[in-house]
Amino acid sequence: MNKCPETTDNVEEVVLNVIRPTRRQLTILSSFFRHVKRTYEACLNRLGLKGEVTVQGSYAKGTILSDKWEIDIFIILEGVDKEWIKREGEAFLRECASRHLPYTIRYSEHPYITVSMMGLEADIVPVARPEPSRLEGLGVERTPLHTEYVRSKMDRELADQARLLKSFLRGVGVYGAEVRTRGFSGYLAELLTITYGSFRDVLRAASGWRPGVYIDPEGVGDEKVLRRRYRDSVMIVVDPVDPKRNTAAAVSVQSLATFVAAAKLYLEHPHTWFFHACQPSRPPLPGLDMYRLNVDCRGPLYNHPPDAVWGKALRALESLTNRLRRTGFKIAHHTVATDEYHTLTFSIILEECGLSSMEVVQGPYAWSPTERLTKFVLKRLSEGGGAWISIDRMIGSRPRRFKDAAEAARHWLASEESASLHDLGVSCRVVCEKCGHGECNPTPAWIASLLRGRGR
Amino acid sequence: MNKCPETTDNVEEVVLNVIRPTRRQLTILSSFFRHVKRTYEACLNRLGLKGEVTVQGSYAKGTILSDKWEIDIFIILEGVDKEWIKREGEAFLRECASRHLPYTIRYSEHPYITVSMMGLEADIVPVARPEPSRLEGLGVERTPLHTEYVRSKMDRELADQARLLKSFLRGVGVYGAEVRTRGFSGYLAELLTITYGSFRDVLRAASGWRPGVYIDPEGVGDEKVLRRRYRDSVMIVVDPVDPKRNTAAAVSVQSLATFVAAAKLYLEHPHTWFFHACQPSRPPLPGLDMYRLNVDCRGPLYNHPPDAVWGKALRALESLTNRLRRTGFKIAHHTVATDEYHTLTFSIILEECGLSSMEVVQGPYAWSPTERLTKFVLKRLSEGGGAWISIDRMIGSRPRRFKDAAEAARHWLASEESASLHDLGVSCRVVCEKCGHGECNPTPAWIASLLRGRGR
Repeated sequence: MNKCPETTDNVEEVVLNVIRPTRRQLTILSSFFRHVKRTYEACLNRLGLKGEVTVQGSYAKGTILSDKWEIDIFIILEGVDKEWIKREGEAFLRECASRHLPYTIRYSEHPYITVSMMGLEADIVPVARPEPSRLEGLGVERTPLHTEYVRSKMDRELADQARLLKSFLRGVGVYGAEVRTRGFSGYLAELLTITYGSFRDVLRAASGWRPGVYIDPEGVGDEKVLRRRYRDSVMIVVDPVDPKRNTAAAVSVQSLATFVAAAKLYLEHPHTWFFHACQPSRPPLPGLDMYRLNVDCRGPLYNHPPDAVWGKALRALESLTNRLRRTGFKIAHHTVATDEYHTLTFSIILEECGLSSMEVVQGPYAWSPTERLTKFVLKRLSEGGGAWISIDRMIGSRPRRFKDAAEAARHWLASEESASLHDLGVSCRVVCEKCGHGECNPTPAWIASLLRGRGR
Repeated sequence: MNKCPETTDNVEEVVLNVIRPTRRQLTILSSFFRHVKRTYEACLNRLGLKGEVTVQGSYAKGTILSDKWEIDIFIILEGVDKEWIKREGEAFLRECASRHLPYTIRYSEHPYITVSMMGLEADIVPVARPEPSRLEGLGVERTPLHTEYVRSKMDRELADQARLLKSFLRGVGVYGAEVRTRGFSGYLAELLTITYGSFRDVLRAASGWRPGVYIDPEGVGDEKVLRRRYRDSVMIVVDPVDPKRNTAAAVSVQSLATFVAAAKLYLEHPHTWFFHACQPSRPPLPGLDMYRLNVDCRGPLYNHPPDAVWGKALRALESLTNRLRRTGFKIAHHTVATDEYHTLTFSIILEECGLSSMEVVQGPYAWSPTERLTKFVLKRLSEGGGAWISIDRMIGSRPRRFKDAAEAARHWLASEESASLHDLGVSCRVVCEKCGHGECNPTPAWIASLLRGRGR
């Protein structure tokens, strides 16, 4: 999908020409929406329900990107409550679903339906209209309020700036609040653009962020209360629509760090590669002379909601990398990929697949209690290792339990430590091997662009 | 020379039976001394010099060990001073040396002569008799005073206890104040035995020592002055004969730590292997599955005093191990051996001879100044490595300069860092290989004895 020339001049102009939606795209989405709207309005009438069929999300807010062929449709029902939606929502959706379009019923907080037509997709979400006096505890019902807020603040020019930010966030891999990314939602990107006034100004602000950053766009939040409530958040951005809510609650330290570093590098060395629509089609750097441990798993992942799959997969990945580190392997990079359907792959880049058979361990200082010295010596000797004095402490050697990364991973798979993976019902195959030519360089394009940006 | 049964019962009794000198040994040393004495007394007469030919050292103090066939003979001259000894000492020694016995003229602070006869050896040292009122600044002239002090304090029983301590110190590798060992001198061992009353009581005291330990056997020292004067000493033992002198000035932290740890382990698990005369003739433990880097050097070491050879060799060893550690090698143990004549060998035991070709390096936090981030990225990329974000910081990879321990050592040999080795005029050959069967376990016998002591 890379339609951008690789450049460091007028980068944002070049990118905007690629990511701005086309008239054709907007026309198609609009008629798709009208079709769905007609179908559901008819159905509401048939069922004697009162409600409004509205378009939400980036299409509604005017910040949609050129490669997005999806719309969010909310049916805002009158005279029903959350409980009704939970209880009757699925039946309502099935009843109203068009006989002519394929659909899937899904669940997040609420039931919703995904309808597709020739590559177009609409998520249709029934919600109860919230009472304006009781905004707390809202979930998905908050969405229409967000749409309204953004529309009231954004002109066409600012929408372009929001598009740049979204594309940048996607380009550096931190766009999306779901478990998979734990990054910046579309609404958060829009809010930041509104707050700082332009794409560049958001980046300039982000250059100074650290974990604990607190931003209150409309000055409506109570910092003390929010900091207490979102104690584990690395970033707080007060939601103008719901001042007790942190719009950035999902942002992980990795996402924050990535965005901060990317913002700084971009401001110094702008390049199209920072944007999602301008990623190079081939790896921008040659592969590194490293090793890769792959754990390929298969199983009925479709039995679990995607967020649950990602959550368990990420927990398992952390446990596996910890195990490998404890065993003595030096880990360069680790990722997990899944189709959320039936395959899940951990990929860990290591300095090497094999370690020496003995490892050197530090023991107690000579001035430690006799018991500790004796224990250390007897432990090392009984393991078949050795012990001696180096400078001022005991040093010993012991046979490594696992010399082989694949063996260590297999042992982990058979242990309790990989429980979160087994919850998913998968079975896995482990391979560790030298990276092939051109593979195995975890440097993202936006970092690699620095070398290009310097004319090298 | 191991004549001791391997035992953990009555260990000290068993050891004493081996290390106590025999009547025959004492008779031979005594007649050797009388022969030298006659020769030198005649020579003094001939030269019109006034002086006394005396025996010093462990033979004179009654603490000699059964395998020692050496005596120290001091010629205490009247009416001459230090300067005379320095100027005329060598001529005097050559003039008086027996025509019938082979000898070597040597230098330490003073000139001295080593005379040998059928495996017997005597060091003959001319000194000026010190004025009792001016003890400060004494060097080798202090020796007769030490002999006198020890003789006045030690009976036969206590001499046996001193013998045990000396044999223990030698057994655990910390006997001798010379540069090679930086350990406990014979006089220091005797002083500690006198102070604490028995071998076991010295060990019990040592169990509580740490760097900075201060011992004043006769309560004659000024702690503040001594601590200032011997700021770099890890241990201070005030010399009863010269209260401004630290008898333990030579003791390194490694020697102190070794003695402290050995004392603790011995008190819990006594074993004959802690004593020098009872070392097992074969390695007490199987070899470890490790690697050894050998640097074998040859050259005219005989051109340098032994202490200078050891000093430069130890400095070079430290520089080499630092280089290897910086390069990424895990060092288990390192030693240097030399015949002080023409060979010198560094032996370094490593987890492995080779490392992976890329290494993982930590970079700055995302919140660091842009300049540091840019610099890290450009450095890694221009080296042919990569850079990415892990949690909250930059991580990168870079090609290792040296994947091979031998290559790293050869590069070190060709660099300024090995200057102290080149001062010795040697040339060296480097090999790194897997330890052969049964080689390469740095565990000393006294530590290995713990496993035996437990009846395993």
